[in-house]
Amino acid sequence: MHKSSKFIGENALSNFKPLNILVRPNVVEAEKAVKEAVSQRKTLLVVGNCWVHYLGRAKSKLEPGERILIIKEDGSLLVHRSVGYEPVNWQPPGCIFQIQAKDNILEIRAVRRKPAESVKVFFDKIFMVSALSLADSGEFSLYASEEDMQKAILLEPSLLEEGFKPISYEKKVEPGFVDVYGVDKNGKLVVVEIKRKTAGKEATLQLAKYIDAVKGKANREVRGILVAPNIAKDVQRLLATLGLEFKSLDPRKCADILKRSEARKLEAFFTGETI
Amino acid sequence: MHKSSKFIGENALSNFKPLNILVRPNVVEAEKAVKEAVSQRKTLLVVGNCWVHYLGRAKSKLEPGERILIIKEDGSLLVHRSVGYEPVNWQPPGCIFQIQAKDNILEIRAVRRKPAESVKVFFDKIFMVSALSLADSGEFSLYASEEDMQKAILLEPSLLEEGFKPISYEKKVEPGFVDVYGVDKNGKLVVVEIKRKTAGKEATLQLAKYIDAVKGKANREVRGILVAPNIAKDVQRLLATLGLEFKSLDPRKCADILKRSEARKLEAFFTGETI
Repeated sequence: MHKSSKFIGENALSNFKPLNILVRPNVVEAEKAVKEAVSQRKTLLVVGNCWVHYLGRAKSKLEPGERILIIKEDGSLLVHRSVGYEPVNWQPPGCIFQIQAKDNILEIRAVRRKPAESVKVFFDKIFMVSALSLADSGEFSLYASEEDMQKAILLEPSLLEEGFKPISYEKKVEPGFVDVYGVDKNGKLVVVEIKRKTAGKEATLQLAKYIDAVKGKANREVRGILVAPNIAKDVQRLLATLGLEFKSLDPRKCADILKRSEARKLEAFFTGETI
Repeated sequence: MHKSSKFIGENALSNFKPLNILVRPNVVEAEKAVKEAVSQRKTLLVVGNCWVHYLGRAKSKLEPGERILIIKEDGSLLVHRSVGYEPVNWQPPGCIFQIQAKDNILEIRAVRRKPAESVKVFFDKIFMVSALSLADSGEFSLYASEEDMQKAILLEPSLLEEGFKPISYEKKVEPGFVDVYGVDKNGKLVVVEIKRKTAGKEATLQLAKYIDAVKGKANREVRGILVAPNIAKDVQRLLATLGLEFKSLDPRKCADILKRSEARKLEAFFTGETI
């Protein structure tokens, strides 16, 4: 039994923000709606039974199943399954889209040129197509603590520099506690002082004190690295005079590394994957 | 002017798969639909004007704007803006949800215990709520080439081991070309042979030949590492006898690293961020 799709369009709700929803369209109706949404650079949701082929750097196949497809205004594409926080297939912004209905199948192809890669999504059943004009200029701001930055460096030492190996953290030296303490690729000791905001004079002098304390005990060369999102201009000279170094690190990047590393472990547990 | 929401429910379309869509519900209607979907472990789409607070490892705020919220069957949560392939806020699987409508605002809270973190999404305008029962048992399979694995190691040498530094790739030595050639953290030369499937006898002997050729020229210790997703059981002894090593590497992980590293560069370009 065939039932025609329901359409709730702009006209019916003209006093509201444009929101087009097609419920259970056939592939020809869906093709028209998807083409229109993509050409008008709307954000598009398609829910239905689909399979996906990816060809580019690598090659992947996703067997049929019911999923959510999102195409965004910037030409990025996501295919989400009913489980897992990561999309199963995706393309970054800037894709070119080719849409066609053929033999009762809707094919949506997202192509990139550099590098050459394409994602093809094939729908044989479509539950919903929704085209959205989303107004969004809200700012996103993230605050990560110095502890987050410290943990991120311990987890991924190459954030500091290639070949860095942490030995300890919160190491007690005479004037207080060193944030991270380790050796570089050449075997030199490294003392790291972390600040989550612009590093100033105080942080620089603090690091210098730690270095003095460590040098007094160790019979090796000691490097001091100040880690912060940025450094005050008038402190750069002091830093150089004291023989210290600066490494720029974004707290937001650190927070993201921590969260992803944890979520991966968790996701692997849920999906039974090994990492 | 108030207009009551439209509801397209299971009864109206009983011969189809259950698909509940609420268009422009008020917050009380939306609260009911969201609570029901979460308690029934359905996949949920909410589109509307929202702002988001995150508190956990770090702390973030997202100012108001029109976005797509996805809650999945496994208790993961995603907030997607109209641009960017990455979600602006997200929680991995296993969240507990608290939903309440108050003062014309719908608050959806996704809480995790370990680590303690919560995402709160506040909607003051809701364009659509859709609850989906998605049947999806389709398998995802990804094929990455040996070249992908090689590029991933060059991009992230720590995939091989901490402190590894590549010197060249496709280096010509007498019997052919070495996949990756570098030095380890102790200054020893390293010859890497890559296979995208189970490494067998042939790959092991090939690596041994390269090692011999390199040893003949260099006056240093040379290590040989066979990189593959896994190694045949009957070859492990041969490997040990020849003094070679094995490092397990998943081709899928390599493909993902390549794609993300590229997409990041691209995303930064589109959003004007610096990385």
